[in-house]
Amino acid sequence: MEIQNLSNEQLHERLAVLTEKYNSYKSLGLKLDMSRGKPGADQLELTNEMLDPALLGDYKASNGFDVRNYGILDGIPECKQLFADILGVKPENTIVFGNASLTIMYDYISQCMVFGAGAEPWAAQSGIKFLCPVPGYDRHFAILEQFGIEMINIPTNAEGPDMDMIDELIKDEKVKGVICVPMYSNPSGNTYSDETVRRFAALKPAAKDFRVIWDNAYCVHHVNETHDVLLNIFDIAKEYGSEDFFIEVTSTSKITFPGAGVSVLAASDKNIADIKKRMTVQTIGYDKINQLRHANYLKNLAGVEAHMLKHAAILKPKFDAVLEAFGKNLAGKGIAEWTVPNGGYFISLDVYAGCAKKTVALCKEAGVTLTGAGATYPYGKDPEDKNIRIAPTFPSRDELCKAVEILCLCVEIAAIEKILG
Amino acid sequence: MEIQNLSNEQLHERLAVLTEKYNSYKSLGLKLDMSRGKPGADQLELTNEMLDPALLGDYKASNGFDVRNYGILDGIPECKQLFADILGVKPENTIVFGNASLTIMYDYISQCMVFGAGAEPWAAQSGIKFLCPVPGYDRHFAILEQFGIEMINIPTNAEGPDMDMIDELIKDEKVKGVICVPMYSNPSGNTYSDETVRRFAALKPAAKDFRVIWDNAYCVHHVNETHDVLLNIFDIAKEYGSEDFFIEVTSTSKITFPGAGVSVLAASDKNIADIKKRMTVQTIGYDKINQLRHANYLKNLAGVEAHMLKHAAILKPKFDAVLEAFGKNLAGKGIAEWTVPNGGYFISLDVYAGCAKKTVALCKEAGVTLTGAGATYPYGKDPEDKNIRIAPTFPSRDELCKAVEILCLCVEIAAIEKILG
Repeated sequence: MEIQNLSNEQLHERLAVLTEKYNSYKSLGLKLDMSRGKPGADQLELTNEMLDPALLGDYKASNGFDVRNYGILDGIPECKQLFADILGVKPENTIVFGNASLTIMYDYISQCMVFGAGAEPWAAQSGIKFLCPVPGYDRHFAILEQFGIEMINIPTNAEGPDMDMIDELIKDEKVKGVICVPMYSNPSGNTYSDETVRRFAALKPAAKDFRVIWDNAYCVHHVNETHDVLLNIFDIAKEYGSEDFFIEVTSTSKITFPGAGVSVLAASDKNIADIKKRMTVQTIGYDKINQLRHANYLKNLAGVEAHMLKHAAILKPKFDAVLEAFGKNLAGKGIAEWTVPNGGYFISLDVYAGCAKKTVALCKEAGVTLTGAGATYPYGKDPEDKNIRIAPTFPSRDELCKAVEILCLCVEIAAIEKILG
Repeated sequence: MEIQNLSNEQLHERLAVLTEKYNSYKSLGLKLDMSRGKPGADQLELTNEMLDPALLGDYKASNGFDVRNYGILDGIPECKQLFADILGVKPENTIVFGNASLTIMYDYISQCMVFGAGAEPWAAQSGIKFLCPVPGYDRHFAILEQFGIEMINIPTNAEGPDMDMIDELIKDEKVKGVICVPMYSNPSGNTYSDETVRRFAALKPAAKDFRVIWDNAYCVHHVNETHDVLLNIFDIAKEYGSEDFFIEVTSTSKITFPGAGVSVLAASDKNIADIKKRMTVQTIGYDKINQLRHANYLKNLAGVEAHMLKHAAILKPKFDAVLEAFGKNLAGKGIAEWTVPNGGYFISLDVYAGCAKKTVALCKEAGVTLTGAGATYPYGKDPEDKNIRIAPTFPSRDELCKAVEILCLCVEIAAIEKILG
C-alpha cells in the first residue's frame, strides 16, 4: 500500500523495522560502487583478441598508408567507414579522434568559444545559454559550466525533451544550442521518439551559430532483445536544411575498451571542413594503429552488433536484478518511480520528492556509493531533489543485488522520515 | 672559390653547366620528399615488438588499476615514472596525454586564451604577443597564428636565442611567452647553451601570466655518439623561483611510433594542479593500454637510450650524406651555410640571401619536395628569404643522396641567377 496512507504509528513501526535491517547491513562494512557507467571486469575480457598484432597485418591502411607513421588527419578509411556504418552517415562526414568522445565535445565547444560557429566567437557574446534536457549527463553539464555557458533545464519524458519549450526558448539568440543523449539517454535509458527527432531537425533558432551536441554514446548499446530505434538525425535534418546545426559524436568506449577506444564526430560537409581546418593546427593525426586494430577487429556494423550481444548477455541480468528489486521493494508504495530501458548503461530512479540527497547519504553510510544526488542536473541542482542515476554495470551481480537491496531500504527510510517531518 | 668573385662570363658558363645537369635530373621524373621530419620505413620496424600483447600482462598498472577500463586522469604510474626519468622531473609533475605533444601545446594555449594562466583570459587581453626564436617550427607558429597571438622574431645562434632581446621585450606585459625547441632545435639542430637555459630561468617578465612552451621534442634523439646536453630547466628555474613560467612537453612519436605514441607535459605543482582541474572536465583519461605498452616495452631511461641507438644507427648515415654533399658541392662558394647537428631531425640550410623561395621552387620542378621556404618563420615570412629546413630522415639513403645532389644544384643556380640579377 501507499506509504502516504499509513498512520503515524504505522510509519514509526515500519521505520523501526527498516532501520534495524539497515543497521545490520551497515555493520557489514560493505564497499559497493554503483556510481559510474563503467563496464564490469567480465566485459573487459570480451575484447582482448583485438590486441592481437596479427590484426594489424603489414600495418597498412586500405589506402596503403603505414599507420605507424605520421599523417592522416581525419582517420584511416576503414575506421571512417566503420563509424559511418554505425551512424548511418557518409565516411566523408566523419572525423576519427582518440580515446573519448567527451574530449571531442569539450574541444568543439572550446573552439566555438574561441573561434565561433560561423559567427562571432561565443566567448565574445556575453550571456550565452544552452538548453539541457534533464535529468541528463553530469559531464555534459560540467563542460558547459567550465566555459561559463548558462544552462537551462528542459524537462523530459519517455518521448524526449519538451520540444514546445525548446521551440520557445530558441527565439532568444543568446541560446546557442542543446546538449543531449538521444538514444538510451543518460540517465533515463529512454530513446527520443521519431516525432522528437523530427522536431529537433525542424528547429528554427534565432541564433545562426546554433549547435545541437547529439551525443549518441549508446547507439548500438542494446541490452534487451527488443530494442529501441533512433531516427537518423542527419537524414531528417536534410529535409529541413538544418544539417549544420548538428554535431553527432560516439565512441567505442563501451564497445571495446573504455581505457583505449576510438571516438568519432559526424557532421555536415560545412562543419567537417571548418573543424578540419582548425584540427590541422591541433594535431598531425590521432592514434592510427588503434584505428586499424578497431576496424580490423570489428569489421563492420554486423561485427559491432555481434560483439554488442556479448555485452548485452552480461548486462541484462544486472539490469534485471535492479528492476526486480525495485519491483519487489518499491512498487505500489508511492515513493519511487523508475525507467525500464532497453539499452544503455543507466536506470533513472525518482525517489520521494526532497529525498534524493538523503537517500544517497544513507546508502553511502552503509557502504553503497551512488552517483551524487543532483548530478543529473546542471549545477548539481535537482530542483525537486528526487532523481538518482543508477549505474548497474560495474559491480558483480551478487554485489549489485546487495547494493540494490540496501538502496531500496534507504529510499523507503528517507521517504518515511520525510513524511513524518 | 666564392661565386661572387666570378666574372659575369664565368657565371654564365657555370650556370649553363649546372642547368644542363639540372635538366637531366628533371627529365627523370623523380618524386623525392625531404619536407617533413618523418621517420623512415626502416625506423618504423624497430618498435614492432611493443605491439606484443604479452607486454600487457594481466592488463593491470602498477597500482592495480585495470588499464582497459575508465579512469586515471593523468597517466598510469609506470608511464609517469618513465617520462619523469626522461625529463628529470618528479612523476607528480607530469601528465601523460595521447598521441602528439602538438595537441598538448595547442590545448594549453587554447585554455590560456579562454581561462587565462592565473590572470585574465588571454583572449580578453587585446594585442598579446609571443616571442618566437627563428628559424623555428612551423607548427608552433601555426598554433599562435590561429589564436591571433602576435609573433615577434627572435634571432638565434648556436647558443640559442638572443636573450638580451628577450629580456628587453618581456618588459612589455603584452608579451605572454616564448615558444621554442631547446634541444636539437627545429630546424637548426642546435642545443641551447647552459648560459641560455640559465637566462631563461632568470627571466623577469612584466606579465604575471607569462609562459615558456619548452618543447623538448628531441630530448633523447641523439644522432652522433658525441651528443649535446641540455640543462634541466626545472632544476635551474627552482633557483630563481620561476618554475611556474615553464610548460615542458615531449612525446614518444620519434621513439616508438609517430602514428601511435604517448605524450607528456611537465610543469610546476601549481600548473599541474590548474591543468588537472580543467582536464577533469575534458576527459576521463587518455589511452592507458598504450601507456602500459610503452612503459613495459621501454622500461626506463636506459631502455629508451638503448632504443634510440637503433634509430641513430639508421639516421646517422642520412645526416652524413647530406652534410657530405653540402661540403662537396657548396663549401667555400660563399652561397650557403648550414648547421652540423648532433641529433634531432633537421639540418638548417641558409642559402644566398633572397634565394630560398627560388631554390625550393627549382627543387620542386625537379621532383624534390622540401619544406616550404619561409616555413621556419612566423607567418611564413623569412625576412631575408634564405632559410630552408632540411629533413633527411624519411627518404631512403639512395633517394636522399639524389635529392641532396639536386638541392645543391638548385642552391647554386638560384644564387648565380640572383647575382646576375
